[in-house]
Amino acid sequence: MTNIQLDRIENEALRNRVVTPEEAASWIGDGMTLGLSGFTRAGDVKAVPFALVDRAKENGFKVNVFTGASLGSDVDTLFAEAGIVNKRLPFQADPTMRKSINAGDMFFVDQHLSHTAELVRSGVMGPIDFAIVEAVAVKEDGTIIPTTSVGNSSLFATHAKNIIVEINMAQTPLLEGIHDIYEPGKQGARGPIPLEKADDRIGVPGIKVDPELIRGIVFTEQADSPSTIVQPDEETKIMADHLLDFLRKEIELGRLDETLAPLQSGIGSVANAVLHGMIDSEFKNLEVYSEVLQDAVFDLIDAGKVDFASCCSITLSDEKMKQVFGNFEQYRDKLIMRPQEMSNHPEVIRRLGLISINTALEFDIYGNVNSTHVSGTKMMNGIGGSGDFARNARLAIFVTKSVAKGGNISSIVPFVSHTDHTEHDVDVVVTEQGYADLRGLAPRERVPLIIENCVHPDYKKQLWAYYQEALERGGQTPHVLEKAFSWHQHLAEHGTMKMEKEAAGVK
Amino acid sequence: MTNIQLDRIENEALRNRVVTPEEAASWIGDGMTLGLSGFTRAGDVKAVPFALVDRAKENGFKVNVFTGASLGSDVDTLFAEAGIVNKRLPFQADPTMRKSINAGDMFFVDQHLSHTAELVRSGVMGPIDFAIVEAVAVKEDGTIIPTTSVGNSSLFATHAKNIIVEINMAQTPLLEGIHDIYEPGKQGARGPIPLEKADDRIGVPGIKVDPELIRGIVFTEQADSPSTIVQPDEETKIMADHLLDFLRKEIELGRLDETLAPLQSGIGSVANAVLHGMIDSEFKNLEVYSEVLQDAVFDLIDAGKVDFASCCSITLSDEKMKQVFGNFEQYRDKLIMRPQEMSNHPEVIRRLGLISINTALEFDIYGNVNSTHVSGTKMMNGIGGSGDFARNARLAIFVTKSVAKGGNISSIVPFVSHTDHTEHDVDVVVTEQGYADLRGLAPRERVPLIIENCVHPDYKKQLWAYYQEALERGGQTPHVLEKAFSWHQHLAEHGTMKMEKEAAGVK
Repeated sequence: MTNIQLDRIENEALRNRVVTPEEAASWIGDGMTLGLSGFTRAGDVKAVPFALVDRAKENGFKVNVFTGASLGSDVDTLFAEAGIVNKRLPFQADPTMRKSINAGDMFFVDQHLSHTAELVRSGVMGPIDFAIVEAVAVKEDGTIIPTTSVGNSSLFATHAKNIIVEINMAQTPLLEGIHDIYEPGKQGARGPIPLEKADDRIGVPGIKVDPELIRGIVFTEQADSPSTIVQPDEETKIMADHLLDFLRKEIELGRLDETLAPLQSGIGSVANAVLHGMIDSEFKNLEVYSEVLQDAVFDLIDAGKVDFASCCSITLSDEKMKQVFGNFEQYRDKLIMRPQEMSNHPEVIRRLGLISINTALEFDIYGNVNSTHVSGTKMMNGIGGSGDFARNARLAIFVTKSVAKGGNISSIVPFVSHTDHTEHDVDVVVTEQGYADLRGLAPRERVPLIIENCVHPDYKKQLWAYYQEALERGGQTPHVLEKAFSWHQHLAEHGTMKMEKEAAGVK
Repeated sequence: MTNIQLDRIENEALRNRVVTPEEAASWIGDGMTLGLSGFTRAGDVKAVPFALVDRAKENGFKVNVFTGASLGSDVDTLFAEAGIVNKRLPFQADPTMRKSINAGDMFFVDQHLSHTAELVRSGVMGPIDFAIVEAVAVKEDGTIIPTTSVGNSSLFATHAKNIIVEINMAQTPLLEGIHDIYEPGKQGARGPIPLEKADDRIGVPGIKVDPELIRGIVFTEQADSPSTIVQPDEETKIMADHLLDFLRKEIELGRLDETLAPLQSGIGSVANAVLHGMIDSEFKNLEVYSEVLQDAVFDLIDAGKVDFASCCSITLSDEKMKQVFGNFEQYRDKLIMRPQEMSNHPEVIRRLGLISINTALEFDIYGNVNSTHVSGTKMMNGIGGSGDFARNARLAIFVTKSVAKGGNISSIVPFVSHTDHTEHDVDVVVTEQGYADLRGLAPRERVPLIIENCVHPDYKKQLWAYYQEALERGGQTPHVLEKAFSWHQHLAEHGTMKMEKEAAGVK
């Protein structure tokens, strides 16, 4: 251990618990539940999981892997390839793991990201055998200072039988002080969460644990995986413009002012593009209250547009990572990083009245949204925080391009093949074609708006034909049940949702 | 005006504004939006709506009708028959109006009951031209004291251009003092809701309005419509026993104690039966934090089982109404009646950690719940508060008998024909066959539990056959999309979901 490393462990007794990743991994047994740090590729542990995968080559075992959200550093890839995961929750975004999940080789529980904490705390999902969390330092009293995400780390560490800390020397020690760890207590024995503004500090700067539970400390020096975000293109820019037009209308109607309301933006290139679109806008003194901060939020900070950003994770491109963490003094007083239970808490989201922008995989003519399942069966990533935000936000906005796969898939379908967000929770839908403001509208009022404003011209007639046939059958929410999934079936059989005129019932 | 009536209006100036229902109704013009008191048949206005219907016989007009929830006194029936409603929200439960809605003769917006307030307050749904609210009295400063429901009355009265008060002499004046009216303020400019226990008082005992806005006061003397609740039968008793068994297991596991957690129970005979089942149980010192209190809650109070009940409405059978309101001194200190925004607020529900019991119309093999749409298209009543509670409760429990229509409909289907509550929000499902605890389970883990524990024996094989075929296709949530609604189609074509062995794919 070098002196620089030594400085990161203030507690004398804990300095004797520094071990190799291999030794730490050897403590983990078959059937155990692991709680790993990591949220959208940020702040994940990078040594013990690898050692665990190596162990799997010698003797087989299965563990349950709970995290904040998706992991970087190929950990989920390697876990899936090694076949050591029994159950994974609450979110993943790994192509290899996705295959294992969809093949039924492992269980994946797709949870609202604010819900995992309640289930662990109440003993429904417990116990956590090992919490393994990345840190920049461990303090004298055992307090763990997280790195670039909090996620569920504080939950896991305070509910685990054993804790393994990975101190990552590649993470800037300036991260200390930006975290705000708040524990709400048990349901039925807790008070209000005293958070009224995005920049309110309500907790403590690190995760307080009994030092005796820290069984081992491992040193690493490896940067977070850069985000895989695709930069804005022509279409995402157009979508951003539509959304900004909608927000301007809200200002005209006196429902918002130029500071808007705290913004939440889900992971993904479209949501990122929308925030990018604000750089050259008239909006100002913006605040962000989100899960993950992507490049665009820091661009907005640099442009003087965003005054403050609350998050539970920072996930940046390679270039942006260097700029932000290389000059972190500039950003520290504009950031708070919270547990995902707080960044995504319905109480706070409803109180602050967020403007929430998330990505849909598909939505239907009534505004129901599928965020997760390709053709209703195959898991993409997971619902993540989109439900936490959409249900409670002032404005629940879902964005998607109107078509995918070279135009062979329409993102707007007669009936979503899987429902993650119901018509009750979806306020505005946006594609590159336009937007539909669904608030206060009955199902039959929503359909013309959605078809005319959001659907790609190639699919308008086909969708009108479905709706006309449905209307003849009547109902609050007219449908032709036997044709509800005909577009998905046509895609499976013919590689496109574009049907022959006859088959689609176009008259 | 009699002296007894006079006593109910403390403000001298307002005494001069007593009018006939006909005169009040004459102020209402075409295209206006009305905000009516009334929640689950309780505390609805009973004179002006009738006069309005009479006016419609002479000249046609359309109004938007916003309420708390369902109305009694046949108001929705008469409104629908008169054809005067353009848009109705956020809930109804009237057979005649249901027909109009499903025929497309009027618009119905099916909203989470806690959401209407935010939409009106932020100006998205406004303006309210006339708030028409039932009261037991109007105080010197114009404060309106509601009757047997609060619902959205305070919201409407404080956001209306004009207010009409119906003082109902048939409602006991002892109701004064049980209401707790709290206004959270605008999103982004509000603090925490300071409610930590079911019996916390956080507001004022009446609706504070500018007396100048009270344009007229009408006197009525007509009891609330009695509830239409069906008394517990053998099957609902068995379901109650299953649910009590589940709660006992939770106690054994140390997750609850004998006082359980504040209970919410949706309207309906099954939910009522479940509460009834607690009368002879070991549970004690129970609390209720619900929307509507039905007979069973008062039986539990009488039995010394329930210490306190918070609600936004009291809806009783004829007999129980006489007992409760005839002896209201006995109950007053055990009750608080709040606006539905507070009874259903996600912040409070999550904080208190409610046990929430609501009725499903159907659910599927993965635990998605349809609460509203018969065969996916025809509206029954509406989602009501079930979504507010299920999403945020400690335990989101849905109950339904396993079959309906003499066994020709299975309440558990391959794919719900409409989704109101997603798998993410449903913890436990209960039928007379048993219960399935779905918490922390992946979709593939849920299916065997649901089929074996909840499905009627007549449908088990058929459901297994569907799932086996789906499994061959794989996925996180295996389905055979082209057969997903085959049970509903078979019902439409043959009057039963029971299929020939061949057609159902049973091997």
